[in-house]
Amino acid sequence: MPKLLIVSREAEAYRQLIEQANLPSLEMATDPAECDIVLGEPRSIRALLPRLSRLKWIQSIYAGVEYLVEPGHRRDYILTNARGVFGDLMSEYVFGYLLAHEKKIFERFRSQQARYWDRAESGLLRGKTLGLLGVGSIGSHVARTAKHFNMKVWGFTCASEDSQDVDVYFHPPELLKFAGGLDYLVCVLPRTEGTNRIVNADLLDALPPHAVLINVGRGNAVDDSALMQALTQGKLAAAVLDVTDPEPLPAEHPFWTTPNLFLTFHTSAKSYAEDITKIFIENYYLYLAGKPLKYQVDFERGY
Amino acid sequence: MPKLLIVSREAEAYRQLIEQANLPSLEMATDPAECDIVLGEPRSIRALLPRLSRLKWIQSIYAGVEYLVEPGHRRDYILTNARGVFGDLMSEYVFGYLLAHEKKIFERFRSQQARYWDRAESGLLRGKTLGLLGVGSIGSHVARTAKHFNMKVWGFTCASEDSQDVDVYFHPPELLKFAGGLDYLVCVLPRTEGTNRIVNADLLDALPPHAVLINVGRGNAVDDSALMQALTQGKLAAAVLDVTDPEPLPAEHPFWTTPNLFLTFHTSAKSYAEDITKIFIENYYLYLAGKPLKYQVDFERGY
Repeated sequence: MPKLLIVSREAEAYRQLIEQANLPSLEMATDPAECDIVLGEPRSIRALLPRLSRLKWIQSIYAGVEYLVEPGHRRDYILTNARGVFGDLMSEYVFGYLLAHEKKIFERFRSQQARYWDRAESGLLRGKTLGLLGVGSIGSHVARTAKHFNMKVWGFTCASEDSQDVDVYFHPPELLKFAGGLDYLVCVLPRTEGTNRIVNADLLDALPPHAVLINVGRGNAVDDSALMQALTQGKLAAAVLDVTDPEPLPAEHPFWTTPNLFLTFHTSAKSYAEDITKIFIENYYLYLAGKPLKYQVDFERGY
Repeated sequence: MPKLLIVSREAEAYRQLIEQANLPSLEMATDPAECDIVLGEPRSIRALLPRLSRLKWIQSIYAGVEYLVEPGHRRDYILTNARGVFGDLMSEYVFGYLLAHEKKIFERFRSQQARYWDRAESGLLRGKTLGLLGVGSIGSHVARTAKHFNMKVWGFTCASEDSQDVDVYFHPPELLKFAGGLDYLVCVLPRTEGTNRIVNADLLDALPPHAVLINVGRGNAVDDSALMQALTQGKLAAAVLDVTDPEPLPAEHPFWTTPNLFLTFHTSAKSYAEDITKIFIENYYLYLAGKPLKYQVDFERGY
């Protein structure tokens, strides 16, 4: 009889949704020592790892599982993350900020406050080139939205190349060539050893000065000092960061006041319990049947 | 030998594009009295109407042709307007403001300025209902973008019902029923007798208080006092107006400072000379061949 532990700020919502699904044989439990399945937030689950003596499977409600895969923690179980549910949310966020930039939404508001009939021309997404740093399930969705807006899409990737909406793929030796042709750079990379400070001074120098950077992946990908320098020196038009390192950002961090830097607060894509529960249910049936689960994380690769 | 007069602030760009097309028999001219074809901005062309003694055809570079169709002016020629080229531009504008609203782009910026790590949940377009007041070529494109974002689309129309992306059509007696089910109301109506003050107190009362109004049609559609009252009393979450009556808005107009009212300056969709010239060229060949032109305006209907 599989026993499930839910470790989440939204545990009650998950419990109700899972109970409504009447999953065969599943029992809810609260003692970590007797549970073989855990559903929840990676950081909170990590604290329980030593006590999960019967652990077989963890279903993360987030895409990012860095708290569970970093070295030093046990790997004697199957870890699955949440995929396929954040793409449309991330697209809404990314295109919200890209369109705000092109339509000069802040500038128009300042004109309004000055009672100035501001006939300045707006920019267009149409015809511009969006570059994806990371082309997994989220990147592919962002690519699809870019195509809806008649944009060109370039993808920089180490692995997957299966998005129909990416016009040109680039690979690790071509990072600066990739950056040189972009109007927008959207980073959707997970936190791994390999992604540390990939957005560094060289990459920022390679971007055209009218380019905009959006980071919805993880904060480790950005070299903070290099970014502040690029923005201050006008080497980059703007940056939008939903993720920082650390989070929350300390009150004294210079990002709060860096010119043309727009902060959001890891709020670009929420894990909706309805979405995640569907993944859990599908995986639970696979688990019961002894079949491979969906969205398994490779501990070595880190995602 | 057809003679063309170009009457536009961008006359030089149009002249170059048309000359590059090497259109058979076409001559450029500058004397209104000898021209049978006119390309340009309706308001400027109107001033020349009495002098266009050989006039056969006017190609407007705008969608809105109210300056030419209003009563009292001659109608002894074929008037064609620009269609099929503003949909993607309008979609960029409309979704820029809808996403700015849902993603709380202004609020996040204020949080950043206050150094506040603002974890408030963002809203989603996904699942919301967008209502189109007017479902012509622009409305259909906005509907398609809404579908890309997994929204429901309702359309209020007197005439055309051919958009695949409109889930439910409503007709004149059902205006308040239509409004009652919306999260966003996007007005894309032309200026005609029939569209005057269609967005009045009754319609604004029927909209849910969390709704957002966007007007990218013509300013005459909105009852200004009713809109200010609705916004001030919290009967409407926000309004975004790209068009007003009159334009430019006088410095003393209360719209500049109405709470939750966002003004832009008839800047949502520019007529790009490359786009409009394509329409002109296609119509010119039809004109030469004596065939019906595309996008003919019905003077009585007004669009």
